[in-house]
Amino acid sequence: MNYSIVFRLLGYILMIEGALLLLPAAASLFYGEWRVLGVFLLTAAVSAAAGYGLRSIKPRSKMFYMREGFAATALSWILISVVGAVPFVLTGCIPNPVDAVFETVSGFTTTGASILPEVESLPKGILFWRSFTHWIGGMGVLVFLLSLLPLTGGSHVNLMKAESPGPQVDKLVPKVQSTAKILYGIYFALTVLELVFLLAGGMPLFESMLTAFGTAGTGGFGFRNDSFGSFSPYIQWVVTIFMILFGVNFNAYFLMLMGKFRRASASEEVRGYFAVIAVAIAIITANIYSLYNSFGEALRQAAFQVGSIITTTGFSSCDFDLWPTLSKEVLVVLMFIGACAGSTGGGIKVSRLLILGKTLGKELKQALHPQVVAPVRMDGKLLNHETVRTTNVYMAAYFFIFVVSFLLISLNGFDMVTNFTAVAATLNNIGPGLELVGPMQNFGGFANPAKLVLIFDMLAGRLEIFPMLVLFLPDTWKRF
Amino acid sequence: MNYSIVFRLLGYILMIEGALLLLPAAASLFYGEWRVLGVFLLTAAVSAAAGYGLRSIKPRSKMFYMREGFAATALSWILISVVGAVPFVLTGCIPNPVDAVFETVSGFTTTGASILPEVESLPKGILFWRSFTHWIGGMGVLVFLLSLLPLTGGSHVNLMKAESPGPQVDKLVPKVQSTAKILYGIYFALTVLELVFLLAGGMPLFESMLTAFGTAGTGGFGFRNDSFGSFSPYIQWVVTIFMILFGVNFNAYFLMLMGKFRRASASEEVRGYFAVIAVAIAIITANIYSLYNSFGEALRQAAFQVGSIITTTGFSSCDFDLWPTLSKEVLVVLMFIGACAGSTGGGIKVSRLLILGKTLGKELKQALHPQVVAPVRMDGKLLNHETVRTTNVYMAAYFFIFVVSFLLISLNGFDMVTNFTAVAATLNNIGPGLELVGPMQNFGGFANPAKLVLIFDMLAGRLEIFPMLVLFLPDTWKRF
Repeated sequence: MNYSIVFRLLGYILMIEGALLLLPAAASLFYGEWRVLGVFLLTAAVSAAAGYGLRSIKPRSKMFYMREGFAATALSWILISVVGAVPFVLTGCIPNPVDAVFETVSGFTTTGASILPEVESLPKGILFWRSFTHWIGGMGVLVFLLSLLPLTGGSHVNLMKAESPGPQVDKLVPKVQSTAKILYGIYFALTVLELVFLLAGGMPLFESMLTAFGTAGTGGFGFRNDSFGSFSPYIQWVVTIFMILFGVNFNAYFLMLMGKFRRASASEEVRGYFAVIAVAIAIITANIYSLYNSFGEALRQAAFQVGSIITTTGFSSCDFDLWPTLSKEVLVVLMFIGACAGSTGGGIKVSRLLILGKTLGKELKQALHPQVVAPVRMDGKLLNHETVRTTNVYMAAYFFIFVVSFLLISLNGFDMVTNFTAVAATLNNIGPGLELVGPMQNFGGFANPAKLVLIFDMLAGRLEIFPMLVLFLPDTWKRF
Repeated sequence: MNYSIVFRLLGYILMIEGALLLLPAAASLFYGEWRVLGVFLLTAAVSAAAGYGLRSIKPRSKMFYMREGFAATALSWILISVVGAVPFVLTGCIPNPVDAVFETVSGFTTTGASILPEVESLPKGILFWRSFTHWIGGMGVLVFLLSLLPLTGGSHVNLMKAESPGPQVDKLVPKVQSTAKILYGIYFALTVLELVFLLAGGMPLFESMLTAFGTAGTGGFGFRNDSFGSFSPYIQWVVTIFMILFGVNFNAYFLMLMGKFRRASASEEVRGYFAVIAVAIAIITANIYSLYNSFGEALRQAAFQVGSIITTTGFSSCDFDLWPTLSKEVLVVLMFIGACAGSTGGGIKVSRLLILGKTLGKELKQALHPQVVAPVRMDGKLLNHETVRTTNVYMAAYFFIFVVSFLLISLNGFDMVTNFTAVAATLNNIGPGLELVGPMQNFGGFANPAKLVLIFDMLAGRLEIFPMLVLFLPDTWKRF
């Protein structure tokens, strides 16, 4: 690994985090939470100073390959999480450091799994920081860095590849910096749009901001103990629609901005995504109809939960752990499907499943007509062999990590549904699971070792596994 | 599809089934069960006569490709199951035809999942037939046919490929007929060996035969309501060891017969298989130690259940649903791993997981050293691209069927662990699951539609999916 250049990058990241910590500081100032304000300012100052020091390291070489991209990304995320956990500990809101890191990782990775049984009494500054980590993590802190700096030397597209979800990363425009800027622009605009709709529904500004952060990052931290159960149907519908919009591949928005509506709506992934959502809502609405007063309410509850789970946001508008088995199983399946590649959502991603499905169809066809060569296409373009192979390897790594985590946390002694859905909810960056980690429960019951496993799963889920695995290879740590 | 040649094959299969039905008839005769004897003789006669008629069809063409191989195999298995279910219905032992087909498919596919709450009162002839279906299905009825007939024309290796488990089918010797004969020879010899060990432990001949059939086919139908719970430790150990032996790739036995002990013991799959067994037994023994009186008993219970589940036999020596969560989760993971390719066991197969693991390792290496080409090897030989691809597609199809089945049977209203393990136990041809389908429970509680889904899963599991999927393609049914 090219240590000097990686350290330099980490320096930049710490400086950015220092700057971002000023926003919750401002919230604390506004609400007159002086102690909390002090904690944020101190953390910001130390983070920025340490970052400035690291940033001054002169890179001895400009070599920056996939390996450096992966390792730098993984290390950046671990670093921002540890630093981001400091305010939780220093304010006494979450005294146990492992819990604080869990909560911060859950924030940055847009998981939204909480160890807090009760959030309504938290200081406003802390609530703001908690939800703001979702917004930062949603589009990615490295993508943010890339949008700011015209970094020279080294192919920084590797950083973008490591941090952006999905089997392929399309550069929207030739320059990495411009691509990153466009992505953040769309992200920012959509967030503001949601904010406006929420304010129009009578939600106070502070709560609207937290909701918009959580929805935009497809995070899931709520600020009321019952998540969105006590909000009006209008607010619930706005949140539902925006959760679903943030799960769409951002390429589609870019194409729409360029006026290419036909190409945007022809995307097979986006169509597949909406098809899955429609089918899931239909099944669940029919299945839970008898539990609610009206068709409208059943539809709203179904749509909210489907939107929340498939985009891996994790908000809830009711305790879906009380639904019939079929509905719960549909939600469990959605947990794995996840949102579109190139969105802020997690999970396996619709495009990966499309690639797998198409490859399967091709193999069956070739078994029947051995003489015919049937190429696999996606959006009219030939799928390159590399993408298919990487997708398959991703799936293998995914299930491997799933199984090992599932076994490790079982040492905690909880039941199998809790263990299974806890891993599913963290590895797919969703938030709530079922049973003991259901929507009205929290992850506080797990012991520290189990929490560490779940922290790893959240990071592996958000960074799509490989960057985290690279850290475990001795080769990575060889200096060159 | 070349209908004439497929019908001809089905004719042969029915004739074989007619002949095989004479064995349970003999058992009925021996025990003086006249009515049952009559039923078996009638079924045998009708089956043989129908088969003789079909066999006389003259094939118009000798074309016999992979498609014919897949379709013929799937149809053969459906046909023998329907015919094999007749004695259960006619004797009144299982009056509901869907239940009878479930039980027979469970037998032939060596699943061992039963809809019967009570088996000790069944007539001996029926008990014999039930366990004998395991033995027939273990090595495969088409492989049996191939060992008998020097079929000419068409590449009959396609039939063997469709029926034999695993990502690759090695012809042991150049001729298909000789390969089939060798496989059945080893199978028969190992079965007799187990019979001798059981008799030496004082088990009566009839029970020893049923046990040997069930173990050899890695089936799992017991003949006592508590499976093997009430047998002596010696018998339990014999069954444990033979279950594990029947899960070994039969190629290893062939190599040993040829005196190539070094090559046999160098097989990466066989080593991996034994490693997984050792680790699983160690974990469970430690985990359940406090539940039993002694280390020896804990070890025996752990080894029995591990051997039974990883080879997908499904016998049980205790109610493992009462074990701690970790042990149950280890068993659930073993359900998916399964035995070696080329054995009589089911599941995903150790070799497939090895191929996936090696491909994953290679991809990671290439991400770190893009300039190095790292080929994937298995047992010293280069893994060909086709095998890797088919393995990946198999996994995709496997999970697709798993998810769809899991959702469909949830309409039955049972809990999620029951649904999940019911699908796992049938698709992997194991037998018992957990909760409502636990080792001391049965599948009788499911409604007919759910049973049909599970019947499909058992067949898909035994035939490794593709032959069953081919039946759903309209192309397959086009005459040519």
